[in-house]
Amino acid sequence: MNLPKFGENSSYNCWLTYRKIENSEVLKQYIGTFSNVSAIGKLPILSTALNELSFGLEKMLGISPKCVSSNNSGIIIGVSSYINTLSNDDINNLKDDGYIIKYYNQNIIISGKNDRGVLYGVFAFLRLVQLETPLHKMNMIDNPSNMYRMINQWDNFDGSIERGYAGNSIFYENNKFIKNKQRVQDYARLLASVGINSIVLNNVNVHYHETRFITKVYLPEIARLADIFRKYGITIFLSVDFASPIELGNLSTADPLDKSVAKWWRDAATEIYHFIPDFGGFLVKADSESRPGPFTYGRDHAEGANMLASALKPYGGVVIWRCFVYNCKQDWRDTKTDRANAAYDNFMPLDGQFLDNVILQIKNGPMDFQVREPVSPLLGGLRNTNQIMELQITQEYTGQQKHVCFLVPQWKEILDFDTLSKGKGSTIKKIIAGEVHPQEHCGIAAVSNIGNDLNWTGHQLAQANLYGYGRLAYNPDLSAEDIAEEWVRLTFSSNDIVVKTICDILLNSWQTYEKYTTPLGIGWMVNPNHHYGPNVDGYEYSHWGTYHRADLFGIGVDRSIETGTGFAGKYIGENAQMYNSIDSCPEELLLFFHYVPYRYMLKSGKTLIQHIYDSHFEGVAQVKEFKKQWLSLKAHIDEERFSNVLNRLDVQIKDAIEWRDVVNTYFYRKSGIPDEKGRKIY
Amino acid sequence: MNLPKFGENSSYNCWLTYRKIENSEVLKQYIGTFSNVSAIGKLPILSTALNELSFGLEKMLGISPKCVSSNNSGIIIGVSSYINTLSNDDINNLKDDGYIIKYYNQNIIISGKNDRGVLYGVFAFLRLVQLETPLHKMNMIDNPSNMYRMINQWDNFDGSIERGYAGNSIFYENNKFIKNKQRVQDYARLLASVGINSIVLNNVNVHYHETRFITKVYLPEIARLADIFRKYGITIFLSVDFASPIELGNLSTADPLDKSVAKWWRDAATEIYHFIPDFGGFLVKADSESRPGPFTYGRDHAEGANMLASALKPYGGVVIWRCFVYNCKQDWRDTKTDRANAAYDNFMPLDGQFLDNVILQIKNGPMDFQVREPVSPLLGGLRNTNQIMELQITQEYTGQQKHVCFLVPQWKEILDFDTLSKGKGSTIKKIIAGEVHPQEHCGIAAVSNIGNDLNWTGHQLAQANLYGYGRLAYNPDLSAEDIAEEWVRLTFSSNDIVVKTICDILLNSWQTYEKYTTPLGIGWMVNPNHHYGPNVDGYEYSHWGTYHRADLFGIGVDRSIETGTGFAGKYIGENAQMYNSIDSCPEELLLFFHYVPYRYMLKSGKTLIQHIYDSHFEGVAQVKEFKKQWLSLKAHIDEERFSNVLNRLDVQIKDAIEWRDVVNTYFYRKSGIPDEKGRKIY
Repeated sequence: MNLPKFGENSSYNCWLTYRKIENSEVLKQYIGTFSNVSAIGKLPILSTALNELSFGLEKMLGISPKCVSSNNSGIIIGVSSYINTLSNDDINNLKDDGYIIKYYNQNIIISGKNDRGVLYGVFAFLRLVQLETPLHKMNMIDNPSNMYRMINQWDNFDGSIERGYAGNSIFYENNKFIKNKQRVQDYARLLASVGINSIVLNNVNVHYHETRFITKVYLPEIARLADIFRKYGITIFLSVDFASPIELGNLSTADPLDKSVAKWWRDAATEIYHFIPDFGGFLVKADSESRPGPFTYGRDHAEGANMLASALKPYGGVVIWRCFVYNCKQDWRDTKTDRANAAYDNFMPLDGQFLDNVILQIKNGPMDFQVREPVSPLLGGLRNTNQIMELQITQEYTGQQKHVCFLVPQWKEILDFDTLSKGKGSTIKKIIAGEVHPQEHCGIAAVSNIGNDLNWTGHQLAQANLYGYGRLAYNPDLSAEDIAEEWVRLTFSSNDIVVKTICDILLNSWQTYEKYTTPLGIGWMVNPNHHYGPNVDGYEYSHWGTYHRADLFGIGVDRSIETGTGFAGKYIGENAQMYNSIDSCPEELLLFFHYVPYRYMLKSGKTLIQHIYDSHFEGVAQVKEFKKQWLSLKAHIDEERFSNVLNRLDVQIKDAIEWRDVVNTYFYRKSGIPDEKGRKIY
Repeated sequence: MNLPKFGENSSYNCWLTYRKIENSEVLKQYIGTFSNVSAIGKLPILSTALNELSFGLEKMLGISPKCVSSNNSGIIIGVSSYINTLSNDDINNLKDDGYIIKYYNQNIIISGKNDRGVLYGVFAFLRLVQLETPLHKMNMIDNPSNMYRMINQWDNFDGSIERGYAGNSIFYENNKFIKNKQRVQDYARLLASVGINSIVLNNVNVHYHETRFITKVYLPEIARLADIFRKYGITIFLSVDFASPIELGNLSTADPLDKSVAKWWRDAATEIYHFIPDFGGFLVKADSESRPGPFTYGRDHAEGANMLASALKPYGGVVIWRCFVYNCKQDWRDTKTDRANAAYDNFMPLDGQFLDNVILQIKNGPMDFQVREPVSPLLGGLRNTNQIMELQITQEYTGQQKHVCFLVPQWKEILDFDTLSKGKGSTIKKIIAGEVHPQEHCGIAAVSNIGNDLNWTGHQLAQANLYGYGRLAYNPDLSAEDIAEEWVRLTFSSNDIVVKTICDILLNSWQTYEKYTTPLGIGWMVNPNHHYGPNVDGYEYSHWGTYHRADLFGIGVDRSIETGTGFAGKYIGENAQMYNSIDSCPEELLLFFHYVPYRYMLKSGKTLIQHIYDSHFEGVAQVKEFKKQWLSLKAHIDEERFSNVLNRLDVQIKDAIEWRDVVNTYFYRKSGIPDEKGRKIY
């Protein structure tokens, strides 16, 4: 298929639509100042920055800025150490990947601590232009909170994407690398525009062919991808198979303490870095959901990860080791074993035993990307281990990009959670920034939501999640409201009605999704395998460790210290107490931590069962309201994007009704307690 | 793979093991009488019969009988009209496909009304030999009850088998016909040995390639299969796609009243009969589970079926039209629509409107091959329409050949059910024999349970179902006990302990499977799609029309006339009254016809809930007992067959426990009523 080019199609352009500036005053001012550009330094990324700048200004201002050699005219871009007009303070305040934008002497200075920072500064500047920011307000300094701001692609070499809801891979097709790399480059550009600096190019479940990505059969092709991402300041990583020495090396073992195994990995690293000198490292899913790992050989995860890390160390690579390790063959009859405890129990005893270039990648919650979970107590529980938090942009459990579900408010709550790891203020965002415990290799990762659909994300509004993830990864202090508004203005229009309406939909969407699906943190009431649509008992008698324990009297999992699985006790200090008691447990997580009778009175003055009924009716009503709101924007949105959202809202209404009726009916049949309002339950 | 030949491997040989006769007296008598064989007539099937006779006698007696020309020496086989020593009575008592075996003047006469009858007579004679029947007791006449004794293969051209649990197809592989036809011939032989005379060679769900089976691209290969089956007296049929005129003929419609459509089918028939002059006809799944059909064109099923029948009529072919037509997109909230009514409602109004060479194929129950269902009221409801009853030998809902489940007792109950269609005595077996209403094209069909596993059926004991089906199709008056014993003696041994033990397992197995799975006729508590293992709510909120409606007070579907879906009223006279009232409804079908409170007292003096608990514990205990019984036979059974059954019994025990615990827990959590015996429920 012929790919559109940026600038040709609004849905493809995402938030880089670069619409013509409408305010003629502002336009005039911009044209006056931005006609000349001087760039200092010649690093490869700098030329990318220059291209982006010129492309954006041409679109928005209708001018092709002239590149001049003078250091004192119009827009000045470059690494900070080369910009004489910056003050020492300015320079000292910049950190790696940070940037400064400064209106000074009728010039605009866009500078970064390093070349990546310059590129981020240019994208930030173009954002300011699109938002029609007055010149005198173009003064900012911005440093990334997280060192690693990663994207995980769950792409398979056959072109499928695990948990992908927007078409097939843009990288692979039928066990081949897609030749036309335009789309990869456009993706790199989108990611860089929001500050992403790392990408894992293949699924954490590493299949036959992908296991061979680290051999010279495939490395030349991987190197081509690295070349593209490098231009946008993005480092590439690969997911690897822990059993590679057996699979590829004809060894009889993958035991991490076996010398021939260690040597095999050292040789593999040498080969990789021969092709890709700035290769980032490995992502490893080991001993998880039937993947091989050190447990096979009676070794622990530190021994496994450290062996790989030693192989990468000479080249500056890191090992990112996932903590998603649990018993996936649990007996549903066993109420003592609790999947929520698994990552904590597996990794806390190893705190401090990992090499410095090992990073543990920990899912945000203890289960698996449910619409509502508590924060994993492993984050901040670990005090002497590098930590990356893993989020899921792809909406596996949150509507699969058929439903609108803006996840930034969820991520904000997680980032702002105070772990108390080193007393008050030890928030997740500071933990993963390495600010609470002095750790270098920290950060944030998320599973991508893009595919080869024209609009990248299937649902037009799901672009906001990719945008919001990048923005938060760089600056977790941004508010959900600001991110939403910025995204709408960049993506659609600066029309206030459009902005207000779409922001309203986005900012209510997560809560709405939660209302018509699983109540109060219990999760998992989905159809097995594909995870779409309601199935209250779908995981109740399974081996996955995911239960709600509903009976005729109540529902919920007792995870208290005294009578339950003890999970509440994994938290630190007051947090443990808070979750441990049904009285102080936040109600949105009530059923995650406690078994609660249907007639239990919530703080709202409603019984639990009435809350379930009400929230499900409210959720459906809210989706219908979304549709009304969206319809009101018909005049303001182009046909393609308007229909995309409208069609998906129709699906969402239908599916939300199904959720409502199945869940309400299930609990009505189970409890026998009628809806106080006498609404139809089946 | 190298196929075994008959005689080389016990599991492959099934019931045609032909073990050496042990009793030396009997052996001596047999050798004395069976050394010479004379065959009269030279029809092709006669030579098959002669081959079988000589093969069997060689194995069992160790002699190669001499073929002699004399009509008066040893074994005399031939079509009855050529056997002078038969009396007029003998000849007149024989019907098509019937046979007579007679010990007369120290000769054995094996004769049939037609060549097929001769072949059946030979197989029956070999059976008598294996059972060491004294010569003077070799006197019998046997006529088939059903004209059509069919097998339906649900094989796909890619080699898969829909609902197949014993490997892949023996006919097709990777969209090609398997070249080595040895296995097809061996299958034909197995089928003929129990009296099967018709086979449908492809799945009723006709996919892309199979749609093309009726074109000259594939007809030469189909004809080769027909040649093999013909030698064993088996006529072949094909499942066809009702939309073939569009798919293959480039017509814009498949409207049965469109003249070009009718002509297209006439031409197709001409082509088919050019390749296969004795082709049986078409099996059609139309307007069912998204298959095309006459409804698309506003036509009814009589119009659709008659059009096809007219095309086949000149060549003597028939159309077998499936009645498995229902709304598979039902809303679970809709309690008025009842899938049980569907076949009846769709076809009863058309009674008498079908051409004589149309046969309606009606599943035994109104739902779909559950472990327990009432008999379909369409059988015998129809009075002026040819009827074939469809059974399922393959154990889709009865343990998928991992569990032992001997289905003959179930089939017996069905065959003996009195429809009252023409007053008392209008049993199903008489209806489908065409004896109640004078209909020519009637009979019985069943979905095969075989694949390319060495032992044909996966579970060694599942061979008994194929055997039993054939025997019942020919003679529905045989008892389940007699069939079981006969099968064990032919298959394993004449050792009385072996016979008693295996018969005991077989004859208890269906009831046992029922005990630990779904209670009292409600069915469907299985995992969707693959239908294996428990999932109580698996189909409860689906669109398939299959619900149990359990709530905290009780369970069951009200299908009564007054307050329910009215299904009970589809039965005739007293049957309708019997099912309609909760008091007279047979308890094994109680939940199929009535919503019943958990505390309802059953005739056993147990409450419904206690019955559920007890039967599930009993079921598991019984399977464990099966294992004990089987272990006791170790000395008597060869290793291959012994381990096969033992391994599957271990699986069955594990799975039965899972069924017991899931179902009991589900109902305990729902009802809150404890087990009176205080056993462990989760």
